[in-house]
Amino acid sequence: MPAYSTNMKLKFPILALSLEIITIILYGVFVVYDDVNGHSTGHNTKNQTHEENPVSLYPMFQDVHVMIFIGFGFLMTFLKRYSFSSVGINLLLAAFGLQWGLLLQNIWHLEDGKIRVSIYRMINADFSTATVLISFGAVLGKTSPVQLLVMTLLEITMFCINEHIVNEFLNASDIGASMTIHAFGAYFGLAVARMLYRPGLRNGHDNEGSVYHSDMFAMIGTVYLWMFWPSFNSAIAEPGAPQLTAIINTYFSLAACALAAYATSSLVEKKGKLDMVHIQNATLAGGVAVGTCADMSIGPFGAMLIGVIAGIISTLGFKFLSPILASHLGIQDTCGVHNLHGMPGILGGLAGIVAAALGKKAGTSPAFQAAALGSSLGFALIGGAITGFILKLPFLGQPPDQNCFDDSLYWEVPEEEEAGESLTHTDHSKNKAEV
Amino acid sequence: MPAYSTNMKLKFPILALSLEIITIILYGVFVVYDDVNGHSTGHNTKNQTHEENPVSLYPMFQDVHVMIFIGFGFLMTFLKRYSFSSVGINLLLAAFGLQWGLLLQNIWHLEDGKIRVSIYRMINADFSTATVLISFGAVLGKTSPVQLLVMTLLEITMFCINEHIVNEFLNASDIGASMTIHAFGAYFGLAVARMLYRPGLRNGHDNEGSVYHSDMFAMIGTVYLWMFWPSFNSAIAEPGAPQLTAIINTYFSLAACALAAYATSSLVEKKGKLDMVHIQNATLAGGVAVGTCADMSIGPFGAMLIGVIAGIISTLGFKFLSPILASHLGIQDTCGVHNLHGMPGILGGLAGIVAAALGKKAGTSPAFQAAALGSSLGFALIGGAITGFILKLPFLGQPPDQNCFDDSLYWEVPEEEEAGESLTHTDHSKNKAEV
Amino acid sequence: MPAYSTNMKLKFPILALSLEIITIILYGVFVVYDDVNGHSTGHNTKNQTHEENPVSLYPMFQDVHVMIFIGFGFLMTFLKRYSFSSVGINLLLAAFGLQWGLLLQNIWHLEDGKIRVSIYRMINADFSTATVLISFGAVLGKTSPVQLLVMTLLEITMFCINEHIVNEFLNASDIGASMTIHAFGAYFGLAVARMLYRPGLRNGHDNEGSVYHSDMFAMIGTVYLWMFWPSFNSAIAEPGAPQLTAIINTYFSLAACALAAYATSSLVEKKGKLDMVHIQNATLAGGVAVGTCADMSIGPFGAMLIGVIAGIISTLGFKFLSPILASHLGIQDTCGVHNLHGMPGILGGLAGIVAAALGKKAGTSPAFQAAALGSSLGFALIGGAITGFILKLPFLGQPPDQNCFDDSLYWEVPEEEEAGESLTHTDHSKNKAEV
Repeated sequence: MPAYSTNMKLKFPILALSLEIITIILYGVFVVYDDVNGHSTGHNTKNQTHEENPVSLYPMFQDVHVMIFIGFGFLMTFLKRYSFSSVGINLLLAAFGLQWGLLLQNIWHLEDGKIRVSIYRMINADFSTATVLISFGAVLGKTSPVQLLVMTLLEITMFCINEHIVNEFLNASDIGASMTIHAFGAYFGLAVARMLYRPGLRNGHDNEGSVYHSDMFAMIGTVYLWMFWPSFNSAIAEPGAPQLTAIINTYFSLAACALAAYATSSLVEKKGKLDMVHIQNATLAGGVAVGTCADMSIGPFGAMLIGVIAGIISTLGFKFLSPILASHLGIQDTCGVHNLHGMPGILGGLAGIVAAALGKKAGTSPAFQAAALGSSLGFALIGGAITGFILKLPFLGQPPDQNCFDDSLYWEVPEEEEAGESLTHTDHSKNKAEV
Repeated sequence: MPAYSTNMKLKFPILALSLEIITIILYGVFVVYDDVNGHSTGHNTKNQTHEENPVSLYPMFQDVHVMIFIGFGFLMTFLKRYSFSSVGINLLLAAFGLQWGLLLQNIWHLEDGKIRVSIYRMINADFSTATVLISFGAVLGKTSPVQLLVMTLLEITMFCINEHIVNEFLNASDIGASMTIHAFGAYFGLAVARMLYRPGLRNGHDNEGSVYHSDMFAMIGTVYLWMFWPSFNSAIAEPGAPQLTAIINTYFSLAACALAAYATSSLVEKKGKLDMVHIQNATLAGGVAVGTCADMSIGPFGAMLIGVIAGIISTLGFKFLSPILASHLGIQDTCGVHNLHGMPGILGGLAGIVAAALGKKAGTSPAFQAAALGSSLGFALIGGAITGFILKLPFLGQPPDQNCFDDSLYWEVPEEEEAGESLTHTDHSKNKAEV
Repeated sequence: MPAYSTNMKLKFPILALSLEIITIILYGVFVVYDDVNGHSTGHNTKNQTHEENPVSLYPMFQDVHVMIFIGFGFLMTFLKRYSFSSVGINLLLAAFGLQWGLLLQNIWHLEDGKIRVSIYRMINADFSTATVLISFGAVLGKTSPVQLLVMTLLEITMFCINEHIVNEFLNASDIGASMTIHAFGAYFGLAVARMLYRPGLRNGHDNEGSVYHSDMFAMIGTVYLWMFWPSFNSAIAEPGAPQLTAIINTYFSLAACALAAYATSSLVEKKGKLDMVHIQNATLAGGVAVGTCADMSIGPFGAMLIGVIAGIISTLGFKFLSPILASHLGIQDTCGVHNLHGMPGILGGLAGIVAAALGKKAGTSPAFQAAALGSSLGFALIGGAITGFILKLPFLGQPPDQNCFDDSLYWEVPEEEEAGESLTHTDHSKNKAEV
């Protein structure tokens, strides 16, 4: 691949600014503040009307916000030389994605031709970015910022279509979005990764690993996702008992999942040691898997069972399934999103079908729950394949194999770290010296 | 000590899964959701009934949650080669502890044979884990995950018995738990450390120190504990004035404590330099010491006095007392929990006795406050000694002296960091490459 | 400069303890708890009376608290050898500053000779410390803890005078404090930096740069500031629609600003690479610039425009203006606060004037808004110059040029990091071993 193709000099700033300008124009036309009478807060209108304080959901919103920007951002910093991109590009994609997502999620039900912004809709906008950040994990280190901005634009668009079908037509229940966000984001990303398959990385890459401190930064992401997941699964639940139920189920599912993940990791590693990859990811699978039925009366007992199963499946996936996907199916999944979001997302969808069949939530039907799962997987795989095909366009600056998992292709990186010493004066520090 | 004894291959996963399965079964029998009529939220029933929104305590809960998992977890990452264990085992112990704690804290007052989970009770469950995490700090680097899971099981059990006695029989006031959590956790841990005394570490250990970045990770824990301590001390206080009082007292006690800790650290170090050990820990002593009387009308003035005294005592303890405890009493206190939780906890208990004598809170008596302090210390020392004796059982995999303070005994650790260079391909990165 | 002058042995602890003791005495005389009837919460009395729960603002307070201690503290840790001081001295200054600020902000309107502490006033106390932390960024690495404590005392005093003039006499609107906090703090710090100009650092300093991990720690600060800025700009807004508006405007301004900052950084760097200095700082300029009119009906559209302009101006400032200020005006601005707080703060003030002229908020006048901006800049420049003159007093322990940007002058620093290896036993680890 010719060097110039990875040069972002003009194509990146032009794309980013163009997207922002188009977005601002659309906001000028369509977006206004919520009138705070509460009768315009999207799907769960009826509860919101009982809500007098328009910012009562704000603490929940901030928990979700932290999961999106700190949780996802730092979880991906485990790579030894790709931490700038992990947290930095995560911020870029989410910042654009939430603007784009708010538009497309609400374009379906304008009121007087306007979209009325509320905290409730800001939470949903943040949610829409989660799908992109999950897919980002699958292609982490192997895509350019230009490719990723294009992916954000396309993925959120398709996510909003599927979400609309699941919520409005199928009227399925997926409060924690196991299907519409986690399974969708994972399989979308895996389809993109398959299209961008790199035979040259079949035997791994020197940079595709962690160092001690990069694993510690990743744990910041893990722990925040683990702590705030109850907010993710309950933020837009019906106020009152359903919201409390969603919090409690997620709290216990994650607690049980953690023990299962630690136990399984020790069981499959030589000499019973724990593997940071498992701990950083599989401990969270319980939050994904309990998502669909988080607000259903499955009981703390049921939530813990789901968590244990998710923790075991996820850890086994990292140990045994991911290598097979890479070697036999040409799916190189950098962060193992299939194990954290893919399989646990499907597990969550299946649990939702069972819960619906057992009448754990009024108004849900196993058939429509199954249709919602199918729709999410279908849109993900087809949408991801189409997106991956588009991302292969050469002028999008895909990095050559030898430059994968390396910040220095897109960032001014202080030399010390690479040279292994910390005394010389670098370009970067010069920049800072001027500043 | 034979090598095999440290091998966790089977004993750790079997223990962790067994504990989780037993817990799930007990939850299936005893635990249900709160019925959201509010008349089942534990000790402060009367206020909770005035509380219409069942998740109104949720933001407070999340602050406490962050203190438990980020605060305690990262505070202990200061050791140069033990950060994986500090934050990772902290997560494991707290995840199990909160499940176990919720059961034992509420087994005393079942309703129709059930425990009804509410946010209020989730906060208390998180609290119960704090005792274990404090004790963990005393034995950090010298115990196996198997030993620590056993300690969690035993310590939370004894904590719940003492807490029940203090709250129900003595009817003592300890809103911020200076006595029942901090003093209890510290002296329990010190008793365990005494039983596990290692003469071989009398002259320290090469790994028992920090590196620059590990001290920075520890500061993440320190700052989060410092910021959210007002939530810890006020989360379960009576809504209204008492809760506001607890927030204000803790806020000012910590602010005053910080200045005292910085001043004292500079005063006792050569050339007036600051010591990270003091800053990471002693700045928090004010939160511990003001705990018991946080919701009493001691005035911001009184809270600041308590904070200053705590900051000075704690710093002096690190500098002068800890070395003596290690050399003369055989108490090797890795994190110096005696200085952060032990002495400030007793100070808090004494302050509570004085405040009760001065009538700063209706319904409190100096005698019962003193009895509560005595009970907490007694249960801690006896319970810790018994637990320490049990933890010496050889099959629990206690690490040999030379492997102390070293993650590599229990974790797959990337080689780069130790080798001091970051270019070679390691087992760990191979694992990630496969993934 | 003689070595002894940098020795903090006695002067630092004596100053810190003296300030704390004086503060405690003043609190004993003046400060009591809010009576929780809500009719004593400062500027927005009328709304607070509608507020029944005295801790309803607490989640907002904690967001601001995190911005002050984690956000500002870690944002400044980018320097390779000055991270202890950045986060540690940030904690010290803010801890003293909030106690001092609460006194001086409320001394103007005592009730029965008392200051009644409420969450609302705790938020404002935290705000007052932000000015000092902004100025700290301008002189980072070139001042002693003693100098900085003196600066905190003087700056907060002058901030409170200006704030009183702006709020009470000019009755100007500055809900997000673009003028009274950001512009004030930036130009105050720049005036101090000018007075402390160091010709010896004209060509930069070997330590004045980052390493890979120090840039990652700084990103923790950046992301938290970015996420919680909506809380900063809305915390003390009128409950209801104005507060919701402030949240929404800040949310969108920051999102738009992020894209503009990334695009501009890539545009001005060679080969279109991103510069961490720009990403860590310029992505936040939108929060500063939208501050003054955050609660005005400028529309999401208007907020995004402000954000884009702020992101571009800030990035260009880092790249082109800061070097000129350093080389031609003798203003050495370590963190580039002029680009993050100075220019965006003025932009915010100007936007407020325009918004007032367009009648975007009832009761605001362009003239008084302009007067508020002028007053803030005037007090900042004059106050900063006076403070800088005082800080030059030799006994305040200003570090010599060669010891700038180096923690080891004020902290016990583990040797490993500097030596580049992590095996030897250091003083610091010995200290820990004793502990």
